[in-house]
Amino acid sequence: MGELEVKGKLAKEASRFLALASTKQKNAALAEMKNGLIAHYETILSANEKDLANAKQNGIADTMLDRLRLTEERIHDMANGIMQVAELPDPIGQVDNMFQNEAGLTIGKKRVPLGVIGIIYESRPNVTADAAALCFKTGNAVILRGGSEAIHSNTALVAVLQQGIELAGFPKTSIQLVEDTSRETARDLMRLNTYLDVLIPRGGARLIQTVLDTATVPVIETGTGNCHVYIDQDADFEMATRILVNAKTSRPSVCNACETLLIHETVASELLPVIEKALAPFHVELRADDKARSFLTNSVPATEEDFATEFLDFILAIKVVASEDEAIAHINRYGTGHSEAIVTNNYFTGLKFQNEVDAAAVYINASTRFTDGFEFGFGAEIGISTQKLHARGPMGLHELTSTKYIIFGEGQIR
Amino acid sequence: MGELEVKGKLAKEASRFLALASTKQKNAALAEMKNGLIAHYETILSANEKDLANAKQNGIADTMLDRLRLTEERIHDMANGIMQVAELPDPIGQVDNMFQNEAGLTIGKKRVPLGVIGIIYESRPNVTADAAALCFKTGNAVILRGGSEAIHSNTALVAVLQQGIELAGFPKTSIQLVEDTSRETARDLMRLNTYLDVLIPRGGARLIQTVLDTATVPVIETGTGNCHVYIDQDADFEMATRILVNAKTSRPSVCNACETLLIHETVASELLPVIEKALAPFHVELRADDKARSFLTNSVPATEEDFATEFLDFILAIKVVASEDEAIAHINRYGTGHSEAIVTNNYFTGLKFQNEVDAAAVYINASTRFTDGFEFGFGAEIGISTQKLHARGPMGLHELTSTKYIIFGEGQIR
Repeated sequence: MGELEVKGKLAKEASRFLALASTKQKNAALAEMKNGLIAHYETILSANEKDLANAKQNGIADTMLDRLRLTEERIHDMANGIMQVAELPDPIGQVDNMFQNEAGLTIGKKRVPLGVIGIIYESRPNVTADAAALCFKTGNAVILRGGSEAIHSNTALVAVLQQGIELAGFPKTSIQLVEDTSRETARDLMRLNTYLDVLIPRGGARLIQTVLDTATVPVIETGTGNCHVYIDQDADFEMATRILVNAKTSRPSVCNACETLLIHETVASELLPVIEKALAPFHVELRADDKARSFLTNSVPATEEDFATEFLDFILAIKVVASEDEAIAHINRYGTGHSEAIVTNNYFTGLKFQNEVDAAAVYINASTRFTDGFEFGFGAEIGISTQKLHARGPMGLHELTSTKYIIFGEGQIR
Repeated sequence: MGELEVKGKLAKEASRFLALASTKQKNAALAEMKNGLIAHYETILSANEKDLANAKQNGIADTMLDRLRLTEERIHDMANGIMQVAELPDPIGQVDNMFQNEAGLTIGKKRVPLGVIGIIYESRPNVTADAAALCFKTGNAVILRGGSEAIHSNTALVAVLQQGIELAGFPKTSIQLVEDTSRETARDLMRLNTYLDVLIPRGGARLIQTVLDTATVPVIETGTGNCHVYIDQDADFEMATRILVNAKTSRPSVCNACETLLIHETVASELLPVIEKALAPFHVELRADDKARSFLTNSVPATEEDFATEFLDFILAIKVVASEDEAIAHINRYGTGHSEAIVTNNYFTGLKFQNEVDAAAVYINASTRFTDGFEFGFGAEIGISTQKLHARGPMGLHELTSTKYIIFGEGQIR
């Protein structure tokens, strides 16, 4: 049996234990996880040093190094994050829609854990503690597969988390890390149907695509966001500019940032220069179609590919459209089904956009940047689903659960 | 572009239209579908004759022939089924949990169609009308891929259904049939990620396994049911016998039928002879472990494989267990997560079984045969999900939908 088979089997066993644990027991273990992180932060930092040294040796970019780096403060943030999860209401055990059927059976839909969750993610080691806490709170065993760059950090983190849950009486196999970070093992994890109930990839477009192409385990696709802001002919100019600037520049590296501006032709000549000026302090590169370029002083021509690209950078594609229908068609063609926004004062235009755009979150007169589990009030987020099955949009604790019909009979037969 | 690419693209376009259709419009089209079936039943029957003739020539078994056969009555049943779907409440457009977040955004979770659904199924042509109606009612475009044995029947049925929806103003590409019934095309359908939002296989264990191994489109796994009845030491003997006989014999060919009896050792000697006698009129073959065989007059030894098999026949595997824990462990090992039942008078034993058995439906003192969309009061059923993602247990209209966050702002930025 390979590493994965062994881990899968142990995770399945742990999941049976976890499914029966009370909220009180789980919260006690989360508190031990937090205590462990704080008590052992030096061990974690020295493991992280090894990863950083290797990364530097491999000539990894500074932005990547920053994502990989842990500090005492970041470890405290992780610990606080775990406590926030502990404080959230536990969805497990809730029974929805209990009713009596025609045969007199009492039938309830009880919320239960998914079972064993696999998480494949990239360099940021904070995902390790975060994902472990969310899966644990919802009674799921988790198998984590982080990037090879972070292997020492992740190993140290998981050891500390395991120690914490063991102190609270849980099997340490409730949280496991795949130590072999080869691509072959990642591929095998994606096909570990016997043990995994779901696989959640967290990372860039390439990782998501590999998982979609390879996985036979059910997947929740997350995070690719080619988001648009459409400025309608009836938009308030000041509001439109404010929303566009916020959606593009407040944090361009995240999936809910705006990548393309669509603007109605009747307002393009007046508004585009204003927008260009507002974006100037952020040094946003403008890649625009011919019509838009005629109203801009500093832009490059947009290619077909630009409209299909999630830049995650200070780059904005711009297209002038002749109608709302054209804007909607463009979004439904190039968008990734994440977050889309219209700015308009017109009631019907706003509703039409919201009805016809096919995405997880459709905004009227607000920034796409709000698509987030915390902003939506879930108190947590495991990712943002861009698929339609199981979960769509920001995923909190609820989205890490399944249901089971519990049926109380008195001898009924059919 | 191959047949599937073309159909996929057309289905995607139709799905945009369907998503915006009102309940009234959809119900009018369902009525036209029904009218079409009744008006053109002779065309359908003569197409079915071709399939039956081919099937006979290929020496297909009588049970299979019966599943393939259409009659005027069966076509009327299909038509009535469509009208029942029309009468069900439409889940599309419902908004759950509308609330205001801290930034003052009004956020609602609106129920929307999944988009394009692929259905792969086997010989029964009634699935064609049934699945088409359920997908249509929920605003989804559907691509049907039935078995090659039923191709003439399915082609005739889909032509009639398409004509009906066209009369009501819908694109006929809302309902499409894959005409090429080769395995290669089925495989391609399972990987048609660009256009399909979900794939639902309906059929035997082999079909489901092929889909799980091959599909990259999100799948809802349905229908394999290796179900157990566990008779506890505190069971009422009469009730236990009644439930077991019903679960095994009332319709052995369906997925919610019982395949294995687990019985507590303290009651086995007294109860097994009673059960054998009760099953005798149904000529049920008993495949039992050694202990059980010592209390039976007519049985064969059970193999490991028997406990893992969905017989779908008048065959029952029997195992004597020393404890409830052993029964639960057996079920969690060999079961397919479909429907499981305990018979007991003991409050704690019943609840423990319900909590610890990992299945879509867990019964205390009732037959497993109740796991069914109609019995559960959903008024329809597209299948019974045995996976934990998206839907678990009987799937009605609700399970053919997704959600979209609709957000109403007043210029908020983050």
